[in-house]
Amino acid sequence: MSDDFRNALETFENPFPDRDYVIDTVCPEFTSVCPITGQPDFGTINISYVPDQLCFELKSLKIYLQQYRNHGAFYEHVTNTILDDLVAVTRPRSMKIVADFTPRGGIRTSVTVEHQAPSS
Amino acid sequence: MSDDFRNALETFENPFPDRDYVIDTVCPEFTSVCPITGQPDFGTINISYVPDQLCFELKSLKIYLQQYRNHGAFYEHVTNTILDDLVAVTRPRSMKIVADFTPRGGIRTSVTVEHQAPSS
Amino acid sequence: MSDDFRNALETFENPFPDRDYVIDTVCPEFTSVCPITGQPDFGTINISYVPDQLCFELKSLKIYLQQYRNHGAFYEHVTNTILDDLVAVTRPRSMKIVADFTPRGGIRTSVTVEHQAPSS
Amino acid sequence: MSDDFRNALETFENPFPDRDYVIDTVCPEFTSVCPITGQPDFGTINISYVPDQLCFELKSLKIYLQQYRNHGAFYEHVTNTILDDLVAVTRPRSMKIVADFTPRGGIRTSVTVEHQAPSS
Amino acid sequence: MSDDFRNALETFENPFPDRDYVIDTVCPEFTSVCPITGQPDFGTINISYVPDQLCFELKSLKIYLQQYRNHGAFYEHVTNTILDDLVAVTRPRSMKIVADFTPRGGIRTSVTVEHQAPSS
Amino acid sequence: MSDDFRNALETFENPFPDRDYVIDTVCPEFTSVCPITGQPDFGTINISYVPDQLCFELKSLKIYLQQYRNHGAFYEHVTNTILDDLVAVTRPRSMKIVADFTPRGGIRTSVTVEHQAPSS
Amino acid sequence: MSDDFRNALETFENPFPDRDYVIDTVCPEFTSVCPITGQPDFGTINISYVPDQLCFELKSLKIYLQQYRNHGAFYEHVTNTILDDLVAVTRPRSMKIVADFTPRGGIRTSVTVEHQAPSS
Amino acid sequence: MSDDFRNALETFENPFPDRDYVIDTVCPEFTSVCPITGQPDFGTINISYVPDQLCFELKSLKIYLQQYRNHGAFYEHVTNTILDDLVAVTRPRSMKIVADFTPRGGIRTSVTVEHQAPSS
Amino acid sequence: MSDDFRNALETFENPFPDRDYVIDTVCPEFTSVCPITGQPDFGTINISYVPDQLCFELKSLKIYLQQYRNHGAFYEHVTNTILDDLVAVTRPRSMKIVADFTPRGGIRTSVTVEHQAPSS
Amino acid sequence: MSDDFRNALETFENPFPDRDYVIDTVCPEFTSVCPITGQPDFGTINISYVPDQLCFELKSLKIYLQQYRNHGAFYEHVTNTILDDLVAVTRPRSMKIVADFTPRGGIRTSVTVEHQAPSS
Repeated sequence: MSDDFRNALETFENPFPDRDYVIDTVCPEFTSVCPITGQPDFGTINISYVPDQLCFELKSLKIYLQQYRNHGAFYEHVTNTILDDLVAVTRPRSMKIVADFTPRGGIRTSVTVEHQAPSS
Repeated sequence: MSDDFRNALETFENPFPDRDYVIDTVCPEFTSVCPITGQPDFGTINISYVPDQLCFELKSLKIYLQQYRNHGAFYEHVTNTILDDLVAVTRPRSMKIVADFTPRGGIRTSVTVEHQAPSS
Repeated sequence: MSDDFRNALETFENPFPDRDYVIDTVCPEFTSVCPITGQPDFGTINISYVPDQLCFELKSLKIYLQQYRNHGAFYEHVTNTILDDLVAVTRPRSMKIVADFTPRGGIRTSVTVEHQAPSS
Repeated sequence: MSDDFRNALETFENPFPDRDYVIDTVCPEFTSVCPITGQPDFGTINISYVPDQLCFELKSLKIYLQQYRNHGAFYEHVTNTILDDLVAVTRPRSMKIVADFTPRGGIRTSVTVEHQAPSS
Repeated sequence: MSDDFRNALETFENPFPDRDYVIDTVCPEFTSVCPITGQPDFGTINISYVPDQLCFELKSLKIYLQQYRNHGAFYEHVTNTILDDLVAVTRPRSMKIVADFTPRGGIRTSVTVEHQAPSS
Repeated sequence: MSDDFRNALETFENPFPDRDYVIDTVCPEFTSVCPITGQPDFGTINISYVPDQLCFELKSLKIYLQQYRNHGAFYEHVTNTILDDLVAVTRPRSMKIVADFTPRGGIRTSVTVEHQAPSS
Repeated sequence: MSDDFRNALETFENPFPDRDYVIDTVCPEFTSVCPITGQPDFGTINISYVPDQLCFELKSLKIYLQQYRNHGAFYEHVTNTILDDLVAVTRPRSMKIVADFTPRGGIRTSVTVEHQAPSS
Repeated sequence: MSDDFRNALETFENPFPDRDYVIDTVCPEFTSVCPITGQPDFGTINISYVPDQLCFELKSLKIYLQQYRNHGAFYEHVTNTILDDLVAVTRPRSMKIVADFTPRGGIRTSVTVEHQAPSS
Repeated sequence: MSDDFRNALETFENPFPDRDYVIDTVCPEFTSVCPITGQPDFGTINISYVPDQLCFELKSLKIYLQQYRNHGAFYEHVTNTILDDLVAVTRPRSMKIVADFTPRGGIRTSVTVEHQAPSS
Repeated sequence: MSDDFRNALETFENPFPDRDYVIDTVCPEFTSVCPITGQPDFGTINISYVPDQLCFELKSLKIYLQQYRNHGAFYEHVTNTILDDLVAVTRPRSMKIVADFTPRGGIRTSVTVEHQAPSS
């Protein structure tokens, strides 16, 4: 699955690759489907990364995330997969994703995953 | 007591056990009973953990916490027991629980407990 | 059911019956049980009234509301019944109850009921 | 279209039909699709009504609204249609819907529609 | 009691008696004692009035309210008495007092009283 | 000037012309230029109207407002002109515009203008 | 005193005198001196008016208000005088001033004054 | 003085002495008297500690703090004394007190004191 | 200049000199004059220090800061000078001042300065 | 391009060069143009630096930033260029810029860049 989704992501060249700096992106309109109940889930995806040679393009990120709209996935799986896809495509020096999901049954959950480039 | 309560907790396999990542869960609808006055107490249970091989399932967590509804327990005891139960069932790399109780007599209390896996 | 619950309510004499004035009381720790799923519901009961000869006593109100803790009832029924009980016991010049329930399935509901004394 | 969607709505008998009272329901997880761009829209549907003989059931409301998830519709059309459907099914004494949509192009829009029963 | 307390209040001449205008005063540091339990109560006294010939002086209002510090009184009685005292001393065209008390037993109460000059 | 600006506005047919309903639109990214100092001004344009036969199209509204970006105009003139232009193009049953400008010299200003159709 | 202060106010012609509309101006940096203690007072002056033929110019309003910086005056006097001065200079159809002063001795006060043109 | 006050404090055995954990208690209804002016001061006492063998009992803490109600003391003295008393009675592994006092003369002050057990 | 201003500051003996603790003081009513334009500036002075043998007295701090009311000074100069004066008079173990100034020309500035006692 | 823009920046001598201290400046009225769509972008530029011999003058900073008003640039390029220009002109000991841009397509982005003087 992830390979297909990943194809939607486009990148552009980091205009200042000599400097370590941070890009934070907040996507409050994420929605997917619970694989058990078939009910929609809603959440906010927060992405923070230090780009190396490539940055992801924002419109393509939006289209990438929209692919989850009718896709069944658990919170933990979604968040880790988004990290894997964004890392595969942009090869950042580091990246952190915090996914905040809206409450279900009176319980609110968020998942936080991080990636560090091996040689950085 | 705790053994019985603990049975309500169900787990599922951590889908990304090779990565250290954090799951935060907020349960604002916790209620128990004061063992001295018999009056209900209300609070919010915040659970944050790094899963190892197992994650707790959210619906079972909700049912686990509902068992305290008519159960008499002090704040300090409740919070430590919830940590013990969740650690026993999920064996996390680390776990932290912050229990915020609503004011009584104009005084507001929270209890913070942490667990670190021995070898982590 | 309501007759039994109603017995918990105690009143005291309105110390200033010659003046129309308003007493607002907010009870954020209301909890009852969904009659279909058996799951607990949580809410805030807001009571606003103009007393005539009697005011309700706050501690007895608290005990009255605690009776719903393990009682199954729909939102609309609970709110109307609380109004009926408080009106029956205090005979106010007017009374308004707004019951705000916490979200279920991503949907939040409140119920607003009012009573006006016939001759006022 | 609306006839089909409307079938998802279920009702129950108003338990206190002799009293005019207000039920407010907030649905913050509404999403539909822009009929021109095909991009998802997000919003919050606020429903406030005085029931007559029937109330709408909350779970069926949720399923009703989920039908718009992959449905193309303009803001003004969606909001008026939801009002028409809820009025057709519950025949309320009065009903008001405020639909708040999230910003597009830096611009935020809401639509407010009201219905009054003829003889009330 | 009230006669004695009232003596603390000082007034000054309304500098613009030909114009109806409003003075709002908020006193968030009010404290008295529960006459039953002997426990301190805390609250905020909000006073809003249209002066006629006299305004109350703020420092004297502060001293007037401090007299309740070790005085036992119910919420309803305190609020009505403060209104009576301020009306007796300043003879305003109208006055409204909203007393918001801090929660006790998880329940929060406010009392609202108003006075209208007979001929205004 | 206004005639030229006005040409950017596009409309579509009100899909529910038989019902009086309200459309609220908030444009927080408005900027123009002070005609005296040549310094940029910033503000939020809030538009609320009851459409008759026509609604304005949101993308064209955005382009219409962007024309003020390098245009010199006083607050009062801008706000009244926007109302005149939107009324001329959509002929609404009623329309209200509140323009909130960011502080200058420590002083914050907003302008509120309204239009009512003659025969409504 | 007021005559001198008033001279600082400048006006410009209302560009849309045929329409009744509202200008709201908030001045959060007002400071004067207590005439009794000599201590500085701080507050926010909120001015709302419907202009007739003249609007006040914002820079001159700022300079007008700065004249109170080392001037001793009571809250009630300051607020009424600002209204009198602004009315004298702009002859508005209506004007309202709300002056919110920062707390002194734990007590917060605001003064609200209004003017209505005789023939409006 | 402190010896007498200290007698009001009661303790109970820490139910989980083998684990380092934190208890936070917030007391927003603290009031004492300024030793110079005789005017009441108001504040919030925040206590955070890691218990060793003993925890302080909340009702006794409330009664302990109420003793300051008519007691004259400077902010710095009050805060350090409360720390000394709570440390003497509970012998915690560590304790921190932050006392936030409400503004006087437009100036707001807080005092932060900490204790660390020698061998911890 | 600073020598003269500094004379207003009074101190009292630190009642607990054996313990390192922190006193935070917030002064939201600071105002000075821009040395270039002559226009008033407004800001909040936040002072945080660990006292050694002396604490500054709050009333004298207020009078010290009021001396800047009609004094021309740049933000950076004011903040560093206040630190120098308070350090000279109280000889603290450490002190930090954060001065937040209100916006000018749409731009908001704060200045943060710190002092550390040489031997601490 | 940057050389030309940079000329607008003016500096003044750091009045306290012997002390490391921090100046924070927030510019919420930044606007530039998207180089692809030609649509305006809006954002807040937060600048924090430790000056060495020179500080930037605030009015010149405002004029410097206004040059981007009709200039096409990507977020990452704008933020890095502002840092380069401010560093070139003021040679600070360190500087950090956080640029928060308003949402586009439901996605919000900020860019954080930092500079450290080589020998500091």
